[in-house]
Amino acid sequence: MTALLPPSNRALDVLCIGNAIVDVLAHTDDSFLDDHAMVKGSMQITDPDRARTIYAAMPSAVEMSGGSAANTAAGLASLGISAAFIGKVAEDDLGDVFAHDIRAAGVAFHGFAASGTDAAAGTARCLICVTPDAQRTMNTSLGVAGQLTSEDVDLALVPTARVVYLEGYLWDEPAAKSALRNVMGWAAEAGTRVAFSLSDGFCVDRHRSEFLEIVEHHVDILFANEDEICSLYEVSDFDEAARRVAGHCAIACLTRGEAGSVIISSSGERFDIPVVAADLVDTTGAGDLYAAGFLSGWVSGADLETSGRIASIVAAEAISHMGARPQTNLTTLVKGAL
Amino acid sequence: MTALLPPSNRALDVLCIGNAIVDVLAHTDDSFLDDHAMVKGSMQITDPDRARTIYAAMPSAVEMSGGSAANTAAGLASLGISAAFIGKVAEDDLGDVFAHDIRAAGVAFHGFAASGTDAAAGTARCLICVTPDAQRTMNTSLGVAGQLTSEDVDLALVPTARVVYLEGYLWDEPAAKSALRNVMGWAAEAGTRVAFSLSDGFCVDRHRSEFLEIVEHHVDILFANEDEICSLYEVSDFDEAARRVAGHCAIACLTRGEAGSVIISSSGERFDIPVVAADLVDTTGAGDLYAAGFLSGWVSGADLETSGRIASIVAAEAISHMGARPQTNLTTLVKGAL
Repeated sequence: MTALLPPSNRALDVLCIGNAIVDVLAHTDDSFLDDHAMVKGSMQITDPDRARTIYAAMPSAVEMSGGSAANTAAGLASLGISAAFIGKVAEDDLGDVFAHDIRAAGVAFHGFAASGTDAAAGTARCLICVTPDAQRTMNTSLGVAGQLTSEDVDLALVPTARVVYLEGYLWDEPAAKSALRNVMGWAAEAGTRVAFSLSDGFCVDRHRSEFLEIVEHHVDILFANEDEICSLYEVSDFDEAARRVAGHCAIACLTRGEAGSVIISSSGERFDIPVVAADLVDTTGAGDLYAAGFLSGWVSGADLETSGRIASIVAAEAISHMGARPQTNLTTLVKGAL
Repeated sequence: MTALLPPSNRALDVLCIGNAIVDVLAHTDDSFLDDHAMVKGSMQITDPDRARTIYAAMPSAVEMSGGSAANTAAGLASLGISAAFIGKVAEDDLGDVFAHDIRAAGVAFHGFAASGTDAAAGTARCLICVTPDAQRTMNTSLGVAGQLTSEDVDLALVPTARVVYLEGYLWDEPAAKSALRNVMGWAAEAGTRVAFSLSDGFCVDRHRSEFLEIVEHHVDILFANEDEICSLYEVSDFDEAARRVAGHCAIACLTRGEAGSVIISSSGERFDIPVVAADLVDTTGAGDLYAAGFLSGWVSGADLETSGRIASIVAAEAISHMGARPQTNLTTLVKGAL
């Protein structure tokens, strides 16, 4: 099998689709997670009542735009890659914040601003507890982001993009899931490559059989961390999971925290990419920005190993500050560090 | 004249009254200030249309609770001093953020959540441009904060406090001004000390004659930077301004940026306080936290010089990160640094 290449001559490099979320970040200790029955490192969907309880107990916080695929889109734009984002916000303060920040990052925002009664649920917010080990634990109150439907997803954008990037979190929302099935259908038709993130170990648990089908039949480039890929194949050995995924999609980018990452292609290549040293402050967005870094290299024609090295450089920036969005120009950063 | 002392045996150490604001902070270059006719280092009241224009042009931002007197209250609480805050927010996302953060900081929040048509103006937001020299330039859209009236200010709190702390910014709002006149009257009656911040050079320009009358007849402890105190007395020489203010209020704390600060008492003392070294990131809140540091010492019985040294330690923390609110426990910080 020859190496997968992205199509050329498209208006857009990467079309990202995901939950449009504003993050609310605070430092907490580990006992705060225990007191509120949170599993460290995970993302839990949280109903509005529970979200209110958690927020009331949280220390002073800062608000920053987030959302997994949206963070990837912002990273891509900072890397000079043309990116668009589809997600749903309400016409409220946090909706303004999200729309402002993603546009300011240079991303074309095709978010549907729900209004009237549809907007009652409000813009999604994610309450993020950052523990002293810099690990982030997330509680998402989905609001209108959880109401993404086929109507909100302009399929005509798919053939204009070289790659569509979808977050696994969207599988928690039945209407969004069917919209993304349509996107994958159009992508196959148009030769647009499909990139997919497994998002979260619990998310994989909830949707394993569907994710297995998607990875096997629709995904060209898979992003997952060790926990997620092992969960997908229900194995405890990372190398076994890596072998399995190599038979299923053209490229798999598997992150392993401090142990770096592994990039595997279906043509038999394997590259072990070391991490880039950084002051570890907050891991929020590390995986999202890793994906941005990899895709930026890959759509620009870099080989898999170089793309992986760019991913590591970009992920190191993400973990060196609070919040998921880049706080420096990533193009300049990568140029200096590569 | 004997040194002024705060009254003892009160439920509350410091009652702060000011605009309840959420800050929207972004890094910009100097040309951004020029393009939008901003004066570096100043605070401008901005109508909603202009605020929208500025925000649309600003880079990706972060949102954090702010407000001058509110920042001081949060600093006081972090220093173990009992503090309350009066200010006005709307029942919207940013109002939630403000109320959450000030309560989470340990401050009793007596904010009036405006609802119905009164809330249409929304919670105040301050668009803050942080330039590469770490200077902050502020554009405030006052929203409901600008509608603070006597009804919102519970005068019964005044005799329960040892000190009331008022921000000069409130003089831009006629109804708030009359509420604060009442506060000063009750404070005089109850022996509650009145601390006052001149807030901003342009603010002093707008209200010079009133500020002179207030400083001369109602203020016990004045906080001002060099620019503001020189503007108040319309002199260009700092020492001349310092001499003038010494005849007008019991204690004046005058900050001079990198040159440190000067504390002057009406009994003839003068202490020159050096700055505490810090990585300069963002000066937002430096003056507010300086005031928190000084008052924390003074209400605890420290002498003026020690109170000034605490102020410098706390101000150094404020300028070492984006945003005005403390990001570390100030009690621990001061204990280690004093």
